[in-house]
Amino acid sequence: MITWLIIATVAATTANTPNKAPTASEVLLKATNQDWRKVDQDQVLYMDLAQGRVVMELHPQMAPEHIKNVKKLAREKYWDGLAIVRAQDNYVVQWGDPHADDKKLKKSIKTAKDTLVAEFDRSISSLIPFTVLADQDTYAPEVGFSLGFPVGRDPSQKKMWLAHCYGALGVGRNVPMDSGGGAELYVVIGHAPRHLDRNVTVIGRVLKGIEYLSTLPRGTGALGFYEKPEQRVVIQSIRVGTNVPTKDRMELEMLKTDSKIFAELIEARKNRSEEWFHYQAGHADVCNIPVPVRERARD
Amino acid sequence: MITWLIIATVAATTANTPNKAPTASEVLLKATNQDWRKVDQDQVLYMDLAQGRVVMELHPQMAPEHIKNVKKLAREKYWDGLAIVRAQDNYVVQWGDPHADDKKLKKSIKTAKDTLVAEFDRSISSLIPFTVLADQDTYAPEVGFSLGFPVGRDPSQKKMWLAHCYGALGVGRNVPMDSGGGAELYVVIGHAPRHLDRNVTVIGRVLKGIEYLSTLPRGTGALGFYEKPEQRVVIQSIRVGTNVPTKDRMELEMLKTDSKIFAELIEARKNRSEEWFHYQAGHADVCNIPVPVRERARD
Repeated sequence: MITWLIIATVAATTANTPNKAPTASEVLLKATNQDWRKVDQDQVLYMDLAQGRVVMELHPQMAPEHIKNVKKLAREKYWDGLAIVRAQDNYVVQWGDPHADDKKLKKSIKTAKDTLVAEFDRSISSLIPFTVLADQDTYAPEVGFSLGFPVGRDPSQKKMWLAHCYGALGVGRNVPMDSGGGAELYVVIGHAPRHLDRNVTVIGRVLKGIEYLSTLPRGTGALGFYEKPEQRVVIQSIRVGTNVPTKDRMELEMLKTDSKIFAELIEARKNRSEEWFHYQAGHADVCNIPVPVRERARD
Repeated sequence: MITWLIIATVAATTANTPNKAPTASEVLLKATNQDWRKVDQDQVLYMDLAQGRVVMELHPQMAPEHIKNVKKLAREKYWDGLAIVRAQDNYVVQWGDPHADDKKLKKSIKTAKDTLVAEFDRSISSLIPFTVLADQDTYAPEVGFSLGFPVGRDPSQKKMWLAHCYGALGVGRNVPMDSGGGAELYVVIGHAPRHLDRNVTVIGRVLKGIEYLSTLPRGTGALGFYEKPEQRVVIQSIRVGTNVPTKDRMELEMLKTDSKIFAELIEARKNRSEEWFHYQAGHADVCNIPVPVRERARD
């Protein structure tokens, strides 16, 4: 079997080679507990499907009103029994109320708001962590990471925003900017559609279980919508982590993106020292640097 | 239903708006038959799975020895009955002989070669068409399109190569550069892994049916390999287009990437004039500009 891309095994065999730049696996082995941050269950959404569980994390500072509203929707069990209505190849999977446009059939929103003022970007602030990636980016003047999330920034406009990388969780909207509220959400399942940056309120990203979304049959309607009701994927429930019994939570940790270890990891991604690589790219795309996530040992 | 990204319908409703930059859909409506090139059936591979048919096109000039060998493999029906052995989320689907490492069980290659000298890149030549994309790229000094394929170039080294965008078709190899021959192939099903550029011989890309690969269950073994034989996806056949009865071929046309229409299409992708967009990116990633493909009317 030709494996053609070997990370774990090469790390094991080259760990003792002197004067060789470390691989990503080798860098990670050096991380101590202080290099990991515990994912806050109050910023976690669990989406349960027949296929499995999708775990998403919300950025606590980038879209505060939308995140507050999305948590309200989860707490009023708005999505329970609703469905994934769209799966467009190399683009997005989207869920919400299949009858959202039908005043009679649509599920009413009880405690949350229907729509909100858009939060496409935020003012750059020292209160919002940011670690710059030195590489040039096609779309943004500056890119990097904030609390483990890939972000774009425009220092001249003093703005920053969550970038549409694989796994990004965004708020569907209609043509008007302020027509979304969080009832309709989508996840990126293909090449980063960065042209959506600053056109949508992005609230978080998938940490675990994205394969339950990315492998869904593609919809055959326009934009990948499912044409028949029976093709839709029923959402069993979406819950905020703190509303899930402790025993049923997935306790996760994420490598701190403002750590020295993460800076080394970026270097290992830019210039891959695994024996398999003959050409070093010297660069890395912000959407091609996965932030390590691990399950946490129970206290 | 909040659709939040509307191409076709907006094109229809805004076509008469004066002084508005055309949308991608509007640009395409202007294309004449001269703007499309017929896909050469001698450069097409059909992969038939129980799920459906995947149609791939080979770049005739970028990896001539590998392409010659891959066609030989198809013509000796090498892959018939072999399998997709790997599906790694946000990365690749890979196929070949599950018993390639077992001298007794492996399928013998009859007319083709087992391995070839790597063709990771080619010398820039006026004989190989190239249309530059003005946008800066994270990985390559220069990017653009050649015969509909996204490519990277380094003018200082006088080299060009096929870029690992979504749908790229590459040749699996082991650690040595010259250890691949085409018997093991893979397709990119996630965010462009551009760090693989110039590390692998890329021979083409998927034109139709990639959803039959991108929705396959992900393998749970290391690197997404299927752990159990019954999880593998059997390949019914892989054929070169010219060896398929005319009635069973899919006749395709691709928009010429050296056409004025394609240049306009790039502009429409950089600055989206659809009413839905409130922020114009002003840029486009070479892997985020799909080259239009259409089924051809029969002669």
